[in-house]
Amino acid sequence: MKRARLLVEYDGTAFAGWQRQNNAMTVQQRLEEAFADLTGERVAMVGASRTDAGVHALGQVAHFDTLGRIPGDKLALALNTRLPADVRVQASGYCSPTFHARYHACGKTYRYRIHNAPCAPALFRLDRAHAPLALNLSLMREAAEYALGRHDFSALCAAGSAVKDRTRTITALSVEREGALVTIQVSGDGFLYNMVRILAGTLMDVGQGRLPVDALRRAIDSRDRLCCGATAPACGLTLLRVHYPFDLPDLRMEATV
Amino acid sequence: MKRARLLVEYDGTAFAGWQRQNNAMTVQQRLEEAFADLTGERVAMVGASRTDAGVHALGQVAHFDTLGRIPGDKLALALNTRLPADVRVQASGYCSPTFHARYHACGKTYRYRIHNAPCAPALFRLDRAHAPLALNLSLMREAAEYALGRHDFSALCAAGSAVKDRTRTITALSVEREGALVTIQVSGDGFLYNMVRILAGTLMDVGQGRLPVDALRRAIDSRDRLCCGATAPACGLTLLRVHYPFDLPDLRMEATV
Repeated sequence: MKRARLLVEYDGTAFAGWQRQNNAMTVQQRLEEAFADLTGERVAMVGASRTDAGVHALGQVAHFDTLGRIPGDKLALALNTRLPADVRVQASGYCSPTFHARYHACGKTYRYRIHNAPCAPALFRLDRAHAPLALNLSLMREAAEYALGRHDFSALCAAGSAVKDRTRTITALSVEREGALVTIQVSGDGFLYNMVRILAGTLMDVGQGRLPVDALRRAIDSRDRLCCGATAPACGLTLLRVHYPFDLPDLRMEATV
Repeated sequence: MKRARLLVEYDGTAFAGWQRQNNAMTVQQRLEEAFADLTGERVAMVGASRTDAGVHALGQVAHFDTLGRIPGDKLALALNTRLPADVRVQASGYCSPTFHARYHACGKTYRYRIHNAPCAPALFRLDRAHAPLALNLSLMREAAEYALGRHDFSALCAAGSAVKDRTRTITALSVEREGALVTIQVSGDGFLYNMVRILAGTLMDVGQGRLPVDALRRAIDSRDRLCCGATAPACGLTLLRVHYPFDLPDLRMEATV
């Protein structure tokens, strides 16, 4: 057996997230089916991030064990011939049998895109949320600053999460505008369930004056989810990159944006 | 009767172009049906550009005559409640009854987007063509330079066009790269049938070394379509803006990109 590693891009619109489910189509299932279709071999893929329903990825990393009859760099091309247009394997290769896409990840970078214009977007509706009122980026940046660093992010975790230790470190957090497009980009050592979408929803509320500029600070300090804004829609969120404390020589790790 | 003016954005993927057809859904038909649905009134919309099947628009301009029972600036909001997610009216208003969206247009700006990476895009597949081989932008820019200005563009016109006078003026033409995204942007006083897509296909062939750098010059000088590259796919093309020799005070004319 060999361990294979994939860099995967997907439009999450039509999927119930990354991880296999009984009653809904997921990206993992599509990939496993494409591989079975290609080789007759059943494999179990492990993704670095279990992205939610409707969330996109430009840099998801996955691994799986296989008999390895296809050359490593050809796996991507071969899988793409059996995948729908909304999933593409960007790069592939065999790696150490000890590599684990999820356990070895030391960080992730997510991007949240907002179409900030009076009218909703038509052409860009796939990967942007819509905020009709003008966003004040100075307020959003000021609010974001407090989230940087190591905190208990209990207030930014969706109800129902079983995770006990809710301390995470946000290592970078930026808010930028380019025309109607406002982009929140955030890197950290790990993220709680819905954490990036609650962060984005809170920053959008601050930017529209619906929450005070210290809303995030109050939320983090009090660990009270009610201090935050609503969970922003899934369509705005994209997993840009998974970070490892070593190189992945088989994968081009620049997300092709 | 009043004359109304609309600024329209659409994702052309699911449409057989702008103009009404007997056997296929078009953007014009969707808009006219939305208006009839809203008011009970049948109108005929005239678009500035009869974009082709699969071509997108961020700044299409249309006009139509109506009894005018809805306030001009509310037309956009009202129509959007009856339109599918891939068509959005960005702005609206009543205008002079002499205004004509097509006849009064003095120029148009189109954008052609290319995803230049080994693997096709998943998330950005709606509005980008795919070129797997690295594009040499210096060659593309050098080739493009000759197309600037006033020429007989017979070589860049699809067969079957009945247009006699094929002299047009290209007023701006740029080729830019941002990561995997290569953008050709072109402005002119008018464009022949498929002209921008033949221009884009030829520049892509030059950028990949499949055509010599003087291919466009040879094509224009000889008026020979065979000197050009293939017609680039419709999905990469977006109508960005229609230019008029006067202001359109009722429409925000910055395309929200």
